[in-house]
Amino acid sequence: MARPRALETVSRDALDAVLVILGPRLGDRLTTAMPVRDQHGRDASYLPAAPPDAVAYPRDADEVVFIVTTCHAHGVPVIPFGTGTSCEGHVAALRGGICLDMSQMDAVGQVSSADRTCRVEPGVTRKTLNAFLRDSGLFFPVDPGADASIGGMISTRASGTNAVRYGTMADHVVSLDVVLADGTLVRTSSLARKSAAGYNLTQLMVGAEGTLGVIVAATVRLHPIPEAVETALIAFPSSALAIECAIAIMGSGIPVARMEYLDDVQIRAVERYSKLGLSDGDTLIVECSGDPDSVARQMTWITEIASDFAPRNITTAQSPEDRSRIWKARHDAWWAAIALRPGAKGIPTDSCVPVSRLAEAVAAARKDCAELGVTAPICSHVGDGNFHLCVVFDPENDAEARRVDTLLERLSRRAIALGGTITGEHGIGYGKRAYLVEEHGLAGLQAMAAIKRALDPRNIMNPGKILEPGDALPFE
Amino acid sequence: MARPRALETVSRDALDAVLVILGPRLGDRLTTAMPVRDQHGRDASYLPAAPPDAVAYPRDADEVVFIVTTCHAHGVPVIPFGTGTSCEGHVAALRGGICLDMSQMDAVGQVSSADRTCRVEPGVTRKTLNAFLRDSGLFFPVDPGADASIGGMISTRASGTNAVRYGTMADHVVSLDVVLADGTLVRTSSLARKSAAGYNLTQLMVGAEGTLGVIVAATVRLHPIPEAVETALIAFPSSALAIECAIAIMGSGIPVARMEYLDDVQIRAVERYSKLGLSDGDTLIVECSGDPDSVARQMTWITEIASDFAPRNITTAQSPEDRSRIWKARHDAWWAAIALRPGAKGIPTDSCVPVSRLAEAVAAARKDCAELGVTAPICSHVGDGNFHLCVVFDPENDAEARRVDTLLERLSRRAIALGGTITGEHGIGYGKRAYLVEEHGLAGLQAMAAIKRALDPRNIMNPGKILEPGDALPFE
Repeated sequence: MARPRALETVSRDALDAVLVILGPRLGDRLTTAMPVRDQHGRDASYLPAAPPDAVAYPRDADEVVFIVTTCHAHGVPVIPFGTGTSCEGHVAALRGGICLDMSQMDAVGQVSSADRTCRVEPGVTRKTLNAFLRDSGLFFPVDPGADASIGGMISTRASGTNAVRYGTMADHVVSLDVVLADGTLVRTSSLARKSAAGYNLTQLMVGAEGTLGVIVAATVRLHPIPEAVETALIAFPSSALAIECAIAIMGSGIPVARMEYLDDVQIRAVERYSKLGLSDGDTLIVECSGDPDSVARQMTWITEIASDFAPRNITTAQSPEDRSRIWKARHDAWWAAIALRPGAKGIPTDSCVPVSRLAEAVAAARKDCAELGVTAPICSHVGDGNFHLCVVFDPENDAEARRVDTLLERLSRRAIALGGTITGEHGIGYGKRAYLVEEHGLAGLQAMAAIKRALDPRNIMNPGKILEPGDALPFE
Repeated sequence: MARPRALETVSRDALDAVLVILGPRLGDRLTTAMPVRDQHGRDASYLPAAPPDAVAYPRDADEVVFIVTTCHAHGVPVIPFGTGTSCEGHVAALRGGICLDMSQMDAVGQVSSADRTCRVEPGVTRKTLNAFLRDSGLFFPVDPGADASIGGMISTRASGTNAVRYGTMADHVVSLDVVLADGTLVRTSSLARKSAAGYNLTQLMVGAEGTLGVIVAATVRLHPIPEAVETALIAFPSSALAIECAIAIMGSGIPVARMEYLDDVQIRAVERYSKLGLSDGDTLIVECSGDPDSVARQMTWITEIASDFAPRNITTAQSPEDRSRIWKARHDAWWAAIALRPGAKGIPTDSCVPVSRLAEAVAAARKDCAELGVTAPICSHVGDGNFHLCVVFDPENDAEARRVDTLLERLSRRAIALGGTITGEHGIGYGKRAYLVEEHGLAGLQAMAAIKRALDPRNIMNPGKILEPGDALPFE
């Protein structure tokens, strides 16, 4: 299991100096109460928590500037916090410091129908945003499992089931307001749909996990709500056939809206948990959306393609109720996996490989699980090569934890060997730091570290996540 | 007119030292012949040229590493050169140095149908790439006016008429191999379709105009060639109606493939130049592509929407010949504009504003032209708010050149005031450097300069373009 490195914690004097300055302005929006600190040092992962020394609840960008400027002057770490649903220990205060809980910065600004954009504060969650948009005819498609905050989703470059059609968070940020390490407020770009004006600060901040600055506002991209939606659930006799079918559907040029793969282990877990009456077997859920005629033709085409891959069963659904029943299989996957073993914990892995190598990667992962005796149902955003094992294990059992470590190591190394990445949508946090150099090489890590040193020379922005400035040799 | 700042040129001793080292390995692929140098210091713009001291023609990444390492050791500038079709003086060797002409690195690697990607060397041009792809069923959609090199298109974050559907170069680069300032070779990311693994080095290099490194290979994204294509040419009685119609079409959710606007001045110029029998008036060219049924329904829908905006004339075309005739109006626009005044030069402006502000921006630009007595037909990638004036003028006429300067200044400032950018797809080069700080603010420029200093501390990579490390105060 990854453990936080022993980082030098911030001095008590520096902390006290910061708290004395912040206190009068923030009042009861600054707390050192242990339960609050504990809650803010922990995310959705199995990784050891590390509570911050205090938690602040800023209300606007000015307050963030004030807090960061103060922390910068005293060398005190700043850790932005959204909903605490990250998966790699992103919010652990490894060096102590001040956690910025952004939940009170949750305003949704004016929606521009012509530009299909909306300005939001970082604390708004994706479901709240979509509830706000309901009457506009537009929606925000990025859908990680949790009801995460937009700021957190930007920071981890999140995606989800809609990415195959609409793209990831990287494709949904037009412009950001970011407070940099020294308290400077930067707007990363204009509101134009495209630009060739200088370095892409927006995409540098997307996925930076709070290590380069604190996001205080975002203009995000929206899409028209499709008129019609149709979903198919198709069971296959093997993993290889299911994934080959998915590749064939993608290759046909049909603009699928969503396409998810659940392996037979996962399907059995879901059936046991939710009793949906699913056919046994490796399963694809494929969804099309758009105008009703196009959707109907695309669905016919998809079932025709699927028929070449020996499907055991094809179920299609148009009504919201029937479609919900199909999607319940996917949404329950995580809990169904955990429920396979009462009292167990789950680790969601996050390899992403070129689609052409996905069948190979999944087959090898299943072989590993069998060899190591580890239970780990598989779900995959098969359209973009991203697959999650839900590794079900008892962290108190050292021998089992070592076998899980071996599995995680193999998965990361194999993803890299197949031309892929160790993380498609969860990020590095501190849980995957050890593999970053293997994926990017020393030269890539050096370039990243040079950027970190340039923009955060005192290493106060969420230190210990993604990389440490000293991870790589100086670049000059 | 923008002029190159007086930058300190590299010393003769340093240059000679570099040439002595490079000569034996490169042989006749290193030249100091004046005509070759002259050709390489000049791009497609009106901006004053600045020849490099020598031109090298590397054949592979190893040779680029060798050249850059040598130049780095001696502090000699390196200026990458694609086809010389940039628009803002990007290839001018403002401090002298070695031009790297990448035209001999023009290999196209294996196409992956499953991943819809292709690895290319930077010197291959977009038309050569598409000719290579012809039998694969895939195509590369990014289409700036010129037959530019892929490396140059990446470096300027180029786009074109297909951007409204397929996106810009930023959306078409999966991974890059880049030689950094010190000669280190970096792969910017894996080949997975998405990743959350660390800072986005890929998007940092896209649009960096060679100021952070030399691109030596790229894996680019491809798309299936659509089965059917249909094009409409629609003339309107006013600029406002044409642009409002375009916004309505975008808002309908129809996935238009291309949508271009030509103002009435441009249409008259084209008609005079090409005699296509076009209706007079502000004109939209709208294209749909996909399966034949969808395309037919989308076209019907588009003409229905257009009928609400008092169209003077609607022509639709399905055959390649008829469609070519319509697109000839767009393709001839530049030359038709220049031909309005024999002997004149043209400046393509490149503002890009939020689509909601485009009508206002175009109206104001037309008013400026009338007030200043400047002839400047307008073409616009109306779907993404990017519009080009082709400013037709005599650079030898000082009074006129000053009026043109006033026009350019107003266009840039207004784009920024409307929430847009000074450049949608041409880049900054040295022609637009003066406005970069106005667009990004001092804080934004400081952050960019900090990145430049971090990755190119000796300022040898295409110096004087986008920014100088000393443009902004130190960031710490």
